[in-house]
Formats: sequence, structure tokens, C-alpha cells
Amino acid sequence: MRNFDEITITNAVIERLSGASDARIADISASLIRHLHAFVREVRPTIEEWEKGIAFLTDTGRMCSDTRQEFVLLSDTLGVSMLVDAINHGAGEGVTESTVLGPFYVESPPEKAPGEDISAGIEGEPLIVTGSVHAPDGTPIKGATVDVWHSDGDGYYDVQHLEETGGLAMRARFSTDGEGKFRFWTIKPAAYPIPHDGPVGAMLEKQGRHPWRPAHVHFMISADGYQKLVTHVFAEGDQYLDSDVVFGVKDSLVREFVAKPPGPAPDGLLRNSPFFHLHYDFGLHAS
Amino acid sequence: MRNFDEITITNAVIERLSGASDARIADISASLIRHLHAFVREVRPTIEEWEKGIAFLTDTGRMCSDTRQEFVLLSDTLGVSMLVDAINHGAGEGVTESTVLGPFYVESPPEKAPGEDISAGIEGEPLIVTGSVHAPDGTPIKGATVDVWHSDGDGYYDVQHLEETGGLAMRARFSTDGEGKFRFWTIKPAAYPIPHDGPVGAMLEKQGRHPWRPAHVHFMISADGYQKLVTHVFAEGDQYLDSDVVFGVKDSLVREFVAKPPGPAPDGLLRNSPFFHLHYDFGLHAS
Repeated sequence: MRNFDEITITNAVIERLSGASDARIADISASLIRHLHAFVREVRPTIEEWEKGIAFLTDTGRMCSDTRQEFVLLSDTLGVSMLVDAINHGAGEGVTESTVLGPFYVESPPEKAPGEDISAGIEGEPLIVTGSVHAPDGTPIKGATVDVWHSDGDGYYDVQHLEETGGLAMRARFSTDGEGKFRFWTIKPAAYPIPHDGPVGAMLEKQGRHPWRPAHVHFMISADGYQKLVTHVFAEGDQYLDSDVVFGVKDSLVREFVAKPPGPAPDGLLRNSPFFHLHYDFGLHAS
Repeated sequence: MRNFDEITITNAVIERLSGASDARIADISASLIRHLHAFVREVRPTIEEWEKGIAFLTDTGRMCSDTRQEFVLLSDTLGVSMLVDAINHGAGEGVTESTVLGPFYVESPPEKAPGEDISAGIEGEPLIVTGSVHAPDGTPIKGATVDVWHSDGDGYYDVQHLEETGGLAMRARFSTDGEGKFRFWTIKPAAYPIPHDGPVGAMLEKQGRHPWRPAHVHFMISADGYQKLVTHVFAEGDQYLDSDVVFGVKDSLVREFVAKPPGPAPDGLLRNSPFFHLHYDFGLHAS
């Protein structure tokens, strides 16, 4: 076929999918083509605007590295990540809500023993995190894998300045004990702007948006027989809870980082300076 | 705001655009968010499918270089480039139709004198190209800039194997003479698959599509007081005219590459072997 106009080209492209052997690929492709063409027909870009769009996608790809995922940031800031999350993780009785993975997860983080300090000597306000993992009916889950990661008190992750931290820090993998519990020491995370020195940061500025996320600790929890949970626990009182740049906040995920005076900590340690305490009990969906 | 579900998140993201200082940016962003979210809600991707989508975009970005534009290939093969073309270039009396730019244009090609051979010694079937540039009413346009580029007889562009061609070839810039005419010698181009060793090639294979384009010569023509014309002239009889992978063929752009016996050529040269002749008269829109 030839001589397509701005209406007939859409079905012409979709008809080319008739030879696809995978029906799911064909369905996703047809839907993408239909919605992408509808967007283009609505916006009616000039050639120069189309070129800018191509350049934006190219720059976004070039920004990606082992420690930077600019397309995840784009998905996060356009609300796509939380939309995909909502589609895949309906809430349920006794089950913790999920939120975005974010761009800072590192596969196979260092395994640590219960109660270890994971801050690797980075300065900050001491924080003890305690929690548990349970089934929807409250039964403790023993041996669940609990991956945690968070920013420092200036809002930076280890991978954003590895040359200074000298390696991974403020991230670890724990295993729940016989009562489904885990605990660790670290430092209190801070609110932070997502990395905004790239194309996504430029986009946010042009859209008149700030790049900030409220302070939080990331959790990825998995256990045999249960669905993997990817979530955060956010700090109550943070000024960005209602304007999180990635739309990730849910009320059920907000907890107070409780300020504690010097004295005994929840794990029995005697602290001679103030510290904070965060506690969360996580419920997993049966798989 | 917090606690978005798969419906409420769309307006939540769009509301964040209220601070944009550029109304066009805000409009494009809102339209993108609406159509992108509609696509996601329709397709209902799993987390793994979302990850594959992110990986596809990342790989596409990483494939881009000074001589390879994978996002342009993606736009071309999804019919977006021809859709943008259709939106921007309505046909008109006495005006040549446009088609895609493609990924092989090089800025500021080598300037050549009328009648020069631009094949740089690359083997192939000799071809003389003659043509003219005129206003919609047929008035010749003197001094128009005519950029041309095309593949060799194996379907490759110079930039795809620069180490072998030793530099740019089969591309040049001419200027029309007092009668609006131009002419040059080169070699006959062949049908070719778009570069399909990258993510776009993998996509085409999964979509059950071939990657071929019918043989053609690219033209980009500009002149003071006229709109720039980006187009091709396609070879009559090519087997891919009705299945061009980028949907670029229009009947008005198809011409016979006329086989000629040894003897005098249209520019007066006496050829002692057979050659081909392609002729096209281009009409430009007043700007």
C-alpha cells in the first residue's frame, strides 16, 4: 500500500502486524501505535518539535549507565511507574501497599546479620529500623529476604558518589528470624531531589515542577509462596509527602521516625546519644 | 496529594503542570500523559513487561551514535515519521510530495559542480540523475540548494562502512543553474533493509515484519522564499514499493530508472557502456 494520509497510516501500520507469531506482542504493538498516533494527531508537532522529541529520547538513553536509569526516572515522573504498580498490586486485607522501585536498587546487596549497622561509617543521625514480615492473616514469615536501601542525611545514595563512600552503603539484605522479625542500624535518610542534571531534570524544569521526594526507606521483600513486595516507608511530617515528584506516597506507608533520648534502644543496646526509631510490619500477598 | 489509583493518577500528573511557563510544553506534556496512561491501562503490562519496555528504550538510546539514529528508525517503522510528515506537508498543486528524512542524512554534504560523479569510485551501474526545481506555477528556481544521498548497489550508505569507502560518497550538494536545473552522475541504488542489528530490528522480527525499503534517491531541496522539501524518488518496479517498512512511498514519487544503451547521455557525454537515467522535476511550496 502507498499514499497514506494522517488518518489511513494508523491502520496501515497495524495491518503490518498480521505476521506476528506472538499475540501479546501484536496486541501491545497495535495499542502502542494507536495511542502514539492519537497523541501525534492531537499535538500536531512541527518537524522541529519532532526532532526535539527524538533528541530528548536519545539524550535520555545516553544518560543511562550501570548506576543511572534515566528512562525509569522518566517513567516515574510521568506517573507511569505508579500506574503500572496500581494495575499489578491491588491492595488487600493484611497486605502492605507497594510503590515504585526507583532507580537506585542494586541487585544482590551485601548480606548482613541481624542488628548490624549498614551505614558504613557515613555521618548522620543514628536510626534503628525494626520490623516484621507476615502473611495476610498475621502469621510470621520466617526466612523472608528483606532488601533495604535509602539515602544519607544529605539525600544522596551510595551509588551517586561511590568514589567518596568507597563502596556500597546504606543498603543491605537481611533474613527474617523465627518470629518473622528483622532489625538494623543505619542513619536517618533525608528528602532529596531525584537526579535532575539530565534530560528528565530539564523536562521537570520546563514543566514547572520541583524534583523532590519525601524522605523514605526502600524495602523489597520476598519469601517462598508469597508475591514480592516493593515498597517504601515514608517519614511522617515530611514537607514533600503531598507533592512527591514520582507520585509514590500512600497514607498506609507513612510512619513517624520517632526521636529517642539517650538510653536503651529497641534491640537492647545502650545508646549514649539521641537516636531515631522506625518500625513497620509488612504483610505479603500469597502467590 | 496521595493514594492514587489507576484512574486518579492521570489527572494528578497533569495537575502538576500548572506551573509550566510555556503553554505549548504544558499542552504537549498533558497530551502525552493522557495517551501514555491510556495505552498502559489498555495493555495492562506486568512488571516484567514494563521492565522490558524500559530495557527496549534504553537499548535504543545506547544504539544511537553519530552515524546511527535508532530512535528515528523507531519513529519511521511505527509510522510516526510519515504521520508527522502528513501533518506538516499537505500536497498542493505544482508542489512535490514529501517523505521521511531517514537516518542517513549528513549535515553539509560535499559541494559538487554540475555533472560531477559523486560515486567516489564505488562500483555499480552508472546512473545519471537530471532534474529541475520550480515554483508551484512552474517558474524555475535558480540557485536552489539540492542535497542528494543514496545507497550503493548492495543497499549500503557510505556512513555504514566508512572504513571501506574511505569517506563520504554517494552524497553531495548541488546548486541549480539559471534554468533551475541540476544533474550529476552516480551509481544505481538498490533496495535495502534498514539497519536491523539493533533493538528496532529485533522489534520488527517479533512483529513479523521485513525490514526492507524500495530503492530510492533522497533529496533535500531549499531555496529562499520556499519551504524546504525533504523527499525521495523511488524506483518503478521495485518489489518493496507496497510494503516499505517506513510507509514512505507515494505514487507521485515513483519514476523509472530508464536503462540506456551505450551512446550519448543526457548531459552530452558519450558513454561506451550501458547506463541508467533518472529524471524528476521538483516543485516547492512558497514559504
